[in-house]
Amino acid sequence: MNGPADTAAPRGHRRLAVVAGRGEYPLRVVEAALAQGAEVYVAALAGAADPSDYAAYDVAEYRLGQLGRFLDEIKRRGIGEIVMIGGLPRPSFGALAPELSTLKYLPHFARAFQGGDDHLLRGVVSFFEGQGLRVLGPADLAPDLVAPAGALGRHRPTAGARAAIATGFELLAALSPFDIGQAAIVADHRIVAVEAAEGTDAMIERIGALVEAGRLKLGKGDGVLVKAPKLGQDLRVDMPAIGPDTVTRAAAAGLAGIAVRAGSVLVGDRARLATLADASGLFVEGVA
Amino acid sequence: MNGPADTAAPRGHRRLAVVAGRGEYPLRVVEAALAQGAEVYVAALAGAADPSDYAAYDVAEYRLGQLGRFLDEIKRRGIGEIVMIGGLPRPSFGALAPELSTLKYLPHFARAFQGGDDHLLRGVVSFFEGQGLRVLGPADLAPDLVAPAGALGRHRPTAGARAAIATGFELLAALSPFDIGQAAIVADHRIVAVEAAEGTDAMIERIGALVEAGRLKLGKGDGVLVKAPKLGQDLRVDMPAIGPDTVTRAAAAGLAGIAVRAGSVLVGDRARLATLADASGLFVEGVA
Repeated sequence: MNGPADTAAPRGHRRLAVVAGRGEYPLRVVEAALAQGAEVYVAALAGAADPSDYAAYDVAEYRLGQLGRFLDEIKRRGIGEIVMIGGLPRPSFGALAPELSTLKYLPHFARAFQGGDDHLLRGVVSFFEGQGLRVLGPADLAPDLVAPAGALGRHRPTAGARAAIATGFELLAALSPFDIGQAAIVADHRIVAVEAAEGTDAMIERIGALVEAGRLKLGKGDGVLVKAPKLGQDLRVDMPAIGPDTVTRAAAAGLAGIAVRAGSVLVGDRARLATLADASGLFVEGVA
Repeated sequence: MNGPADTAAPRGHRRLAVVAGRGEYPLRVVEAALAQGAEVYVAALAGAADPSDYAAYDVAEYRLGQLGRFLDEIKRRGIGEIVMIGGLPRPSFGALAPELSTLKYLPHFARAFQGGDDHLLRGVVSFFEGQGLRVLGPADLAPDLVAPAGALGRHRPTAGARAAIATGFELLAALSPFDIGQAAIVADHRIVAVEAAEGTDAMIERIGALVEAGRLKLGKGDGVLVKAPKLGQDLRVDMPAIGPDTVTRAAAAGLAGIAVRAGSVLVGDRARLATLADASGLFVEGVA
């Protein structure tokens, strides 16, 4: 490397910590950041991420109770940015098992635990920001992982399904102040399922069971899963996601398709999801 | 009977048709109306009510497709008032199997079927009103069946549970425009379940399963089922209800109690429900 950019590089050089939870997203974010020339330190969360998945990179495993140790390490490394990505079961405050280095931070989190997921995540973000770190989202580093506007595959919603999508998004907006689920299913001209603590997968399966039991009828082209962030949700740390499993489950439940808020929902590998949607006869639509 | 009231009696004499669905409520309404001196004709809905339960009274069985025949009969009897009470699986328009006498009424119902339960019930009410009938609610005839304000048993909600109840009622109000479920469960400082097509019982069982799987923790005094009508819901034909099963299921799921909107939710036999709530350690609270 040479030329004028060379001397500027150390100043512009991105030093990033990726706090990795469950799933494939953390690895994709790591790879995208490295491809952009960032220096990446991976903190694999014990019980959620497998450090061996990151063996090719600079990785260490941390329990949640080792927050103090993690902070010391990223400060030592001069890391100024952090991204938290991947699934994590909602921890209980009691199960944090904090190390000595972490104890002093507990009062901050004790408050954060007294509320919904949103509240907890806001507490986590404000904590890291209070430590002088810039909190980035997956979309900042890997925008390709996020749903674009329009169809992901070749199937498109019917006019009826578009009306259902509009109803579903209206419902999710109305639910926003309550810090609960980000998904619902609209079918047969009405809302038939609303997600809360059970999660999207369980909600889809519930509808499949109602259909199977003859308690709900889905006509052709009917049945839409809608998923969107809450209004005001911090997409840096809590972007809703769909993936191949979502498509497979939706197809098994007899739904016609999936609609997500474009630019605000993780879809992972777009091409793979489109292929699966096509094969399953489902539409996957990003709605602007 | 004698005196001035006597001559007025035939004019004031109530001739009532009770359209009876599933459960114990129709029988209680019949008995209350008879106790008040009304002349009662019971239409037991095939597949929902068992005519033999009404053998002591004036009863006939009708399918939904025999609406025309039913109307002819109540007109012949000079009946001017109708009450519809008891559970009925949401019928499909295709399964109505209308008799000839019913065919002329179908266009009205074809429209009513294109929407949620509220929409369908509004269609049913407007139909009977259009036929010159006065549509009454169970509370008009048997107010004792409805939740009073205050505790039904000896247990009372804690301050934490009261906050959960308030959150739950706010959520139900926000959901009102969407014509879906009338119940939710609040626990662990957040809304953990919202009812839609699955019904209240299935929603309670879902929470019990999440608790059992360790995905949700309920502290002592935590976990409240809230149930209320939607804003603008026609309580004459669609009053939400709880019963002994609700209490039993809520206790099995580990909830601390049940809160219902006072005056707007059927509770059946108050004394029996209070005894069961006491034995189960649950509060059942009517909130004004």
